[in-house]
Amino acid sequence: MKTYLDCIPCFMQQALRAGRIATTDEAQIKKILDNTAAMVSTIPMQSTPAQTGMKVYDIVSQVSGVEDPYKAIKAKHIQQTKAIYPQLEELVEKSEDKLLTAIKVAIAGNIIDLGVNMHFDLVNDVQNILKQDFAILDYQAFKIQLEKAAFVLYIGDNAGESVFDKILIKQLNKPVKYVVRSAPIINDVTKEDAIASGLDKVADIIESGSKSPGIILELSSPEFIELFQKAPMVISKGQGNYEGLSDCSRSVFFLLKAKCAVISKHLGVAEASIVMKEHIPQTDKE
Amino acid sequence: MKTYLDCIPCFMQQALRAGRIATTDEAQIKKILDNTAAMVSTIPMQSTPAQTGMKVYDIVSQVSGVEDPYKAIKAKHIQQTKAIYPQLEELVEKSEDKLLTAIKVAIAGNIIDLGVNMHFDLVNDVQNILKQDFAILDYQAFKIQLEKAAFVLYIGDNAGESVFDKILIKQLNKPVKYVVRSAPIINDVTKEDAIASGLDKVADIIESGSKSPGIILELSSPEFIELFQKAPMVISKGQGNYEGLSDCSRSVFFLLKAKCAVISKHLGVAEASIVMKEHIPQTDKE
Repeated sequence: MKTYLDCIPCFMQQALRAGRIATTDEAQIKKILDNTAAMVSTIPMQSTPAQTGMKVYDIVSQVSGVEDPYKAIKAKHIQQTKAIYPQLEELVEKSEDKLLTAIKVAIAGNIIDLGVNMHFDLVNDVQNILKQDFAILDYQAFKIQLEKAAFVLYIGDNAGESVFDKILIKQLNKPVKYVVRSAPIINDVTKEDAIASGLDKVADIIESGSKSPGIILELSSPEFIELFQKAPMVISKGQGNYEGLSDCSRSVFFLLKAKCAVISKHLGVAEASIVMKEHIPQTDKE
Repeated sequence: MKTYLDCIPCFMQQALRAGRIATTDEAQIKKILDNTAAMVSTIPMQSTPAQTGMKVYDIVSQVSGVEDPYKAIKAKHIQQTKAIYPQLEELVEKSEDKLLTAIKVAIAGNIIDLGVNMHFDLVNDVQNILKQDFAILDYQAFKIQLEKAAFVLYIGDNAGESVFDKILIKQLNKPVKYVVRSAPIINDVTKEDAIASGLDKVADIIESGSKSPGIILELSSPEFIELFQKAPMVISKGQGNYEGLSDCSRSVFFLLKAKCAVISKHLGVAEASIVMKEHIPQTDKE
């Protein structure tokens, strides 16, 4: 997916939000905004938004001197999602279609935000998403590919959401390789976060070879690229991974909540839709 | 009011929105975003946001070559609001407290946006605002000052909203000088728009001497500044005028809907609140 004009004010918003998480020094945050703005005219519009996102977060780290501003937030999210994990697992176990419910739970994890009443909101939001219909649901194709797959490559998104992924991974009932970023970027899941989320109990944890917030194949390690191309089935979580993989040359199942106008339009769904979409390269129109 | 960090991504949003109204050429819109971004590091944070807003709209006009991108939209808004004017007037006439209802109607005009179903939304939104409680309502002070005032200086905001202002002006039952921008800027009301709104029938129309989107006294004409300082009562509509006058040295009644986080915080109210606040210079804390 390319960068759209709407992404540009959004980069500034991201710079402000991340700046505020990294520091309370208003002058430093202004400098972060200045440096991000200074980069605007050089943004290659054919690159994915995640590629510019990575540069924004580099600016945040450089100006604030804080390497991993989201460290504490990620730990909190993992702790909070682990606290409701038994409830979610019970919900899946009691449901009519366990796999489909687990897919919805995994997408629900994608709504994690930084609200104060997070525990409450999380339970509420999960319940709302479970009631919500999918805007796109390629479930038959998913089940057919899953049945045949010797293993599944599962590309993670945020820390915290990773705990919800564990529920889906258990329902897949196949060996899973769970892909994490190779270094901290925003609140994306790293190896350390995946282990803290308990994913090492249900999957092999694999690094993408990059810290881009969303897989960008050109920036990934050769080992990862090979694994990605050869894996019998790929599940990709969240918008960041969708940005980088929406035009790729293999089948991918995208699981996400469409959180912004650009992604929603690209998918052809209303904003806030939940989606489980199979990307089939030969029919991809972008 | 000074410029806050949150205003900076908002300038980029405004540039994108106005760019799209001025032109459909994506390369021109990207240039508008580039030029706005290039200005970010030079924004004087002690100036009001409207001052930078003016520069953003200058960039839009320069790059697109369109002097008044909102001309057609303003004409449409005036036409649409005039179509529901009789209903609004009847509503005021039938209400228990005509002046207070007219104040609410005038604030309701402040919600005018560019939706497709605007006529429908407008009637709906007005009805919703009429049911909404004020977050701040300095109504006693308003009535006392109004009773004593030989005339009222009424500072307009948007075209279309101006039609709603007519309803309040009639209920004020005093001579009114209605202040407009001296040149087109965004969808702000100009002399031409005020006449098209029928305001010349109920008020003298006065130019501020500036096209800043919101009164900035330093940029206004000496005649306007004198009138502003000497007027027995001043009513100011909308956020743009609030930005420029919230620290001024005389009493002003601000009528607005708090549409953004920065203004809401500055006023100490929740976002989307409706407000009729008397600014009293000696107790102003900013």
